[in-house]
Amino acid sequence: MSLQWWQSPCQPLDMVARARAQARQDQLTKPCGALGQLEDVAITLATLQGCERPQILRPWFAVFAGDHGVVQEGVSAYPQAVTGEMLRNFVRGGAAISVLARSLGATLELVDLGTALPLEPLAGVLHLQVGAGTANFAREPAMTAAQCLIALEAGRSSVERALAAEADLYVGGEMGIGNTTTASALASALLDLPVARLAGPGTGLDDSGVARKMAVIERALALHVAECNSPEETLRRLGGFEVAALTGAYLACAQRGLPALVDGFICSVAALCAVRLNPACRDWLLFSHRSAEPGHAAVLAELQAEPLLDLGLRLGEGSGAAVALPLLRLACELHDGMATFAEAAVSDRPA
Amino acid sequence: MSLQWWQSPCQPLDMVARARAQARQDQLTKPCGALGQLEDVAITLATLQGCERPQILRPWFAVFAGDHGVVQEGVSAYPQAVTGEMLRNFVRGGAAISVLARSLGATLELVDLGTALPLEPLAGVLHLQVGAGTANFAREPAMTAAQCLIALEAGRSSVERALAAEADLYVGGEMGIGNTTTASALASALLDLPVARLAGPGTGLDDSGVARKMAVIERALALHVAECNSPEETLRRLGGFEVAALTGAYLACAQRGLPALVDGFICSVAALCAVRLNPACRDWLLFSHRSAEPGHAAVLAELQAEPLLDLGLRLGEGSGAAVALPLLRLACELHDGMATFAEAAVSDRPA
Repeated sequence: MSLQWWQSPCQPLDMVARARAQARQDQLTKPCGALGQLEDVAITLATLQGCERPQILRPWFAVFAGDHGVVQEGVSAYPQAVTGEMLRNFVRGGAAISVLARSLGATLELVDLGTALPLEPLAGVLHLQVGAGTANFAREPAMTAAQCLIALEAGRSSVERALAAEADLYVGGEMGIGNTTTASALASALLDLPVARLAGPGTGLDDSGVARKMAVIERALALHVAECNSPEETLRRLGGFEVAALTGAYLACAQRGLPALVDGFICSVAALCAVRLNPACRDWLLFSHRSAEPGHAAVLAELQAEPLLDLGLRLGEGSGAAVALPLLRLACELHDGMATFAEAAVSDRPA
Repeated sequence: MSLQWWQSPCQPLDMVARARAQARQDQLTKPCGALGQLEDVAITLATLQGCERPQILRPWFAVFAGDHGVVQEGVSAYPQAVTGEMLRNFVRGGAAISVLARSLGATLELVDLGTALPLEPLAGVLHLQVGAGTANFAREPAMTAAQCLIALEAGRSSVERALAAEADLYVGGEMGIGNTTTASALASALLDLPVARLAGPGTGLDDSGVARKMAVIERALALHVAECNSPEETLRRLGGFEVAALTGAYLACAQRGLPALVDGFICSVAALCAVRLNPACRDWLLFSHRSAEPGHAAVLAELQAEPLLDLGLRLGEGSGAAVALPLLRLACELHDGMATFAEAAVSDRPA
């Protein structure tokens, strides 16, 4: 395989900005460390944005939608029509991520990578038609090599649009009935962990539904795993259009120097794919929340990620990252707006 | 003792609004429960605000400051002058809570209950002069009965001002060098738990400092505990002006029907005092975060509180509650703004 775009180097970290931000934190009128993870967030964003006082003024939300052939195996609580129906709901502003984007003043980009049922053109949606959903990976590879490349590229293009709009934070989201099955299969293959550690109820399977889902994933792994000798091939065989797009987006963020805030289980598996394709991209990823989906813990552990929130969220769409966004903003505002001990003439603790 | 104001009944909960909010949540375009604790928050706020779709438009922050005589025993990493210096910092806008109030559009009220060092009148601060800090409770009761009553009343007055300004959420905060010692002593007495479970580093004591602090609290408990036969008397002997004011504020919130968002360790101990004085007030308290201060866990457990955040915060001032405020707002906005399955023509899961 020739060199692919995602293997190009990621942006270096600005360690001078980091040191300046750390020094500033230590002078603010509070006991050292008293703002906990919010201090780390401010310093990390300073490092990534390359300035002592980072800001999040123009967040960019991109939701990638796609269908999954494996839904034929009865792995989801919801009918496959919901993927397209939810795209309409995104456009009309009634979905969680629509409400959150409005409230947070974020740009919301919608990318349709391919639904199983035909969908009329929707105003404001980029319809990429990579396929009528992926193939059923319980029987054959989910994507052709060309489809996988197009989906990765779709993520990269989204990041280019974010940069053109001068975004200062990238939030990826996903919609795709069946995509926890896809994410669990991918994570199981990439982490070499038992399916039982990674599969869960998704949108709401009962115990027998989860057992069925696990059996389907086991069967798929038995079919594909001998051929999964690179992260690209694992992604192609077991992935989904939206998962590949998110993977491409995270890689492009790191290459272009745009911090990305990762949502829940599906997005974290895409982040894992990205890190396997180009490990240096890890530095550009912040993690928003710990999902109620049980497999998320293993993926976060592998990525050494300590998310900000643990609220039992399991909706997807990028909603958990959106909910965490105010914490990042407040971390930046505290970092920028608080007085130092010297400025405020407050006695610091004796050395 | 005659009947005191805090023993009057709390406002009843609006169970009709609760049922309506629950029904609405179950119809929104997401898997049932997929927004986790944010769904609970919306339903709780609906119950307390008495309407199907709650809102937080006018949050009221009140920071109560006071000094602690027990600081004479060498229990704090910072000099006592910091309490007054931080009041000046609040006024000038350089403290964490000042930055947060500005960013969140909250009213910030500052109440000085009494500092050890004389303080010039500060514009925008209510100087109540309850005393030059409390007495050293390692040697004598922290407050006279009159002081404790005045401090409780200061909290109630703050809530009345919040209501006059049509506040829809009350956030109490505190500033007082030495007040983790006070809070640990109070919690140890009220919960009948060993001091070692409740005392910690506060603003940054090292191990020997924590050991000294524990010994001081042990000594104080030995002096007072036989006389602590009511929550009022425990608060008077081991409390602080700002802790009593917060206690009064939480009680008044419950009696006047204003939801209160509780900050960290000190505020949670005040909430515990309030619940001991009038158990029904518990329903009106939401808990924002789990503090890094180790004693917080036992207090939260007693209050059966499950805070929204766990970010290692330990600053006080109400800062943790302020940081959690956007989560409450987003919970309300999702609850209000999302489409139902019927409105969006999205297929619900088969029954």
